[in-house]
Amino acid sequence: MSDVLDRLAEVLEARKQASPDSSYVASLHAKGLNKILEKVGEESVETLLAAKDAAASGDNSDLIYETADLWFHSLVMLSHLGESHEAVLAELARRFDLSGLDEKASRQS
Amino acid sequence: MSDVLDRLAEVLEARKQASPDSSYVASLHAKGLNKILEKVGEESVETLLAAKDAAASGDNSDLIYETADLWFHSLVMLSHLGESHEAVLAELARRFDLSGLDEKASRQS
Amino acid sequence: MSDVLDRLAEVLEARKQASPDSSYVASLHAKGLNKILEKVGEESVETLLAAKDAAASGDNSDLIYETADLWFHSLVMLSHLGESHEAVLAELARRFDLSGLDEKASRQS
Amino acid sequence: MSDVLDRLAEVLEARKQASPDSSYVASLHAKGLNKILEKVGEESVETLLAAKDAAASGDNSDLIYETADLWFHSLVMLSHLGESHEAVLAELARRFDLSGLDEKASRQS
Repeated sequence: MSDVLDRLAEVLEARKQASPDSSYVASLHAKGLNKILEKVGEESVETLLAAKDAAASGDNSDLIYETADLWFHSLVMLSHLGESHEAVLAELARRFDLSGLDEKASRQS
Repeated sequence: MSDVLDRLAEVLEARKQASPDSSYVASLHAKGLNKILEKVGEESVETLLAAKDAAASGDNSDLIYETADLWFHSLVMLSHLGESHEAVLAELARRFDLSGLDEKASRQS
Repeated sequence: MSDVLDRLAEVLEARKQASPDSSYVASLHAKGLNKILEKVGEESVETLLAAKDAAASGDNSDLIYETADLWFHSLVMLSHLGESHEAVLAELARRFDLSGLDEKASRQS
Repeated sequence: MSDVLDRLAEVLEARKQASPDSSYVASLHAKGLNKILEKVGEESVETLLAAKDAAASGDNSDLIYETADLWFHSLVMLSHLGESHEAVLAELARRFDLSGLDEKASRQS
């Protein structure tokens, strides 16, 4: 699963060039940044509501669906602003010292 | 970069068991779901504001930082509800038919 | 202008009983709390984006429109949960010691 | 209750000129638009969570408190951008044909 974001980012870059009539992603880019940010905001709210309902029901299926929507639209936002998801992953790796875990382990052995 | 989410999810599971005094992640779990969801909501808003500022200034550094915060806190949310980030990635792969790309390519050659 | 919220709350109570086919407000109540909260969240996001654009352009017209949408949908939310806007105004008056300003002034003279 | 917003708006205008050390409202203005919008976003999220909890518990007290926070910070936002709450109330009155109700009634009698 770990390379799904890489593959999805490739798909999103390709669709950025597509016709707005044929592609949801292209239609978002054509409508502009505010429309993309409205979608990120909407999906955040739907994720929060799904999380509250999941906690009450024990059923996580809507939560998974809405979180996927949130991550998807945040990838479209990054793409619209010419930014790569890899910069976000690098920032997370830097904070948690994740990128060098293997190297450290190999040096210690 | 593609396995950063896997590694981060491992770190988050480990810290879930830590003392709330020693770990930010453990303190979020101790405060409960509403506190975690408030953080997801806050980071969504900060991401939207950073995106507007990035579009005006051409500088994406805050956008990267805030999107990392948003993804991080959404991972804590999933962990709090006993859900894996892999379920979200699998949902994205399913939608975009990403999981089988390599297999299809190899069959076609 | 000061009694617009009172009048609007009356209209909203009346439309709560209307047919969902004939009234937007009735259709929101029929769809349930999550739909109403999604609208509150959406209008919050649109208000933030309008505020950023207003600060850049000097034109507040979208900001006024979106804030009206936000207040309107928060009134529908209160109505859906059997709560009055007067309870919210009373809370604001209590915090800022507003309700008794005239009485205090008259006692001091 | 109907003039609480008018009185609160007066208080907020007065505090806009106060020292940031002595007034929360002045400190928000000093920190700037993004900080104010972050607060509007935070209070929106807390309102949504309070509404979900109110629907489950039947206790509306947190909902009232958080909605008051949301309206309060949206008034600070309007003030920061040089806009009056009256413009928002006028927009709501226009949409629902509220402002002229009395005048119409008096003309018909």
